[in-house]
Amino acid sequence: MADAHAALSAPPQPGDGPLALIAGGGSLPMAVADAVIARGRRVVLFPIRGWADPARVEKYPHCWLAVAQVDRFLRRARAEGCRDVAFIGTAVRPPFRALRVDWGMFRLLPRVWRMYRGGDDHLLSGVVKVFEDHGFRILGAHEVAPEILVPHGPIGTLVPSERDRADIARGLALLHAIGPYDVGQAAVVAVNHVLAVEAAEGTDGMLARIAELRARGRIPTPAGAGVLIKAPKPGQDRRIDLPTIGPRTVTEAANARLAGIAIVAGQTIVAEPHAVAAAADAAKIFVVGVGQPP
Amino acid sequence: MADAHAALSAPPQPGDGPLALIAGGGSLPMAVADAVIARGRRVVLFPIRGWADPARVEKYPHCWLAVAQVDRFLRRARAEGCRDVAFIGTAVRPPFRALRVDWGMFRLLPRVWRMYRGGDDHLLSGVVKVFEDHGFRILGAHEVAPEILVPHGPIGTLVPSERDRADIARGLALLHAIGPYDVGQAAVVAVNHVLAVEAAEGTDGMLARIAELRARGRIPTPAGAGVLIKAPKPGQDRRIDLPTIGPRTVTEAANARLAGIAIVAGQTIVAEPHAVAAAADAAKIFVVGVGQPP
Repeated sequence: MADAHAALSAPPQPGDGPLALIAGGGSLPMAVADAVIARGRRVVLFPIRGWADPARVEKYPHCWLAVAQVDRFLRRARAEGCRDVAFIGTAVRPPFRALRVDWGMFRLLPRVWRMYRGGDDHLLSGVVKVFEDHGFRILGAHEVAPEILVPHGPIGTLVPSERDRADIARGLALLHAIGPYDVGQAAVVAVNHVLAVEAAEGTDGMLARIAELRARGRIPTPAGAGVLIKAPKPGQDRRIDLPTIGPRTVTEAANARLAGIAIVAGQTIVAEPHAVAAAADAAKIFVVGVGQPP
Repeated sequence: MADAHAALSAPPQPGDGPLALIAGGGSLPMAVADAVIARGRRVVLFPIRGWADPARVEKYPHCWLAVAQVDRFLRRARAEGCRDVAFIGTAVRPPFRALRVDWGMFRLLPRVWRMYRGGDDHLLSGVVKVFEDHGFRILGAHEVAPEILVPHGPIGTLVPSERDRADIARGLALLHAIGPYDVGQAAVVAVNHVLAVEAAEGTDGMLARIAELRARGRIPTPAGAGVLIKAPKPGQDRRIDLPTIGPRTVTEAANARLAGIAIVAGQTIVAEPHAVAAAADAAKIFVVGVGQPP
């Protein structure tokens, strides 16, 4: 295991063989795959059935997996010569009974059950451990394709006002305070009011709620005020779970009549930067990469 | 003002003249009015138009108010000989433009506008200050009718399991952590997962969300696990804003397929204790008054 640890701390090299990219939902897995391929490295996609989009998977070498098909992954990834694995894309946490259990998974059941009793962080770090125990190295999107991370400053034309910046600071502090409880990665703050805190409903669900409460006159602050703030949870494993935004997040923030979106620079993935900038300009909202408070 | 402060710290006496009870929505204002009347004190209801239920108001001496009709209240409360005021019931925070502004309010506008820029706590403590400046004493429901506070221990037959007690402890700690951000007073925790944190949507909205996410298979924990935890915000003025539960809360928690409800004993109002106990037993969930963590 000493060797494995040394390998873990070494920066990944393009010469390390193909990257096994376990793909959940959304466009992000393909954005990462394209960036890795552009860097000259081969990618083998392992799309998860029910989460990944079959139409988008076609153009890459791929091997479908059901959730929790551990043995199938190990066999195929080894046959392809992969040593590095990245988990990319949205993953709906499945009900325990819906897991397709193969023999590799069966042996892991007691451990997985213990993970299930913890929050997401426990579950994901447990998954990482399983793959590491089989000799794989887990890499984050920020390691295999750093160009997809949000830079400091505005994406698009608009910038936050002084009031927006105060809302951003309050949102970041709130997310920091709830970090130990493994809640969510996002909140909406408007003119110093916390309008919403994300938990099981996800960012989309939270923004839809703001739009709906506003339609019912339940939001005290005016339309056009308020910021969606997203930040990684303190202590989360950034190899497997970085906050992500895309053009759809921009559309939903605009539907909720917010002033803009703030995400932590260098620690948030932007799936399609040009599309995000265009969507932000079209919706007349800002999208800005900010520093995390000390 | 020294006298006013001395009066504030003295316990209210039944001989202090009639109680002016400014009534928002729900059954709670009437429960408090009945308890105060049973103690031998006269009550004058000041129901707020659009919030209070006209049918329920009829049996009490009453004077309708629009939101922010300060002068009308001051005139009528003085004419009735009231010195003590209690604000009871749900208040939907109105959009600023919907406030009915009379002359008394007009003079206060700059101050109210400043309050509006803060969270609810600022708004409510500002309102208290306005009434105190006019010589009124603000009393909480827990002072005029302490029998409506939640006692320690179960209300109804069922009690929390060991797992439920762990969820309760986690929920109380989370609510304590978000207290400084003036968010909400409630969260849902199931098998150590934080499923929801209440903000602008209110407790009803949060419980409806859990029920809906569960119907869509988005809740990872099994039905019958999970607790609604409600606690006062740290530092909030308990005279004007204590968490409240009633039979409807029980029904909604049952619809969300939770195991039960935990509220802080001595710091939560239960509008109709017998109806709450009956609803809890019928829905087979627990409702328990707990101590707040140190």
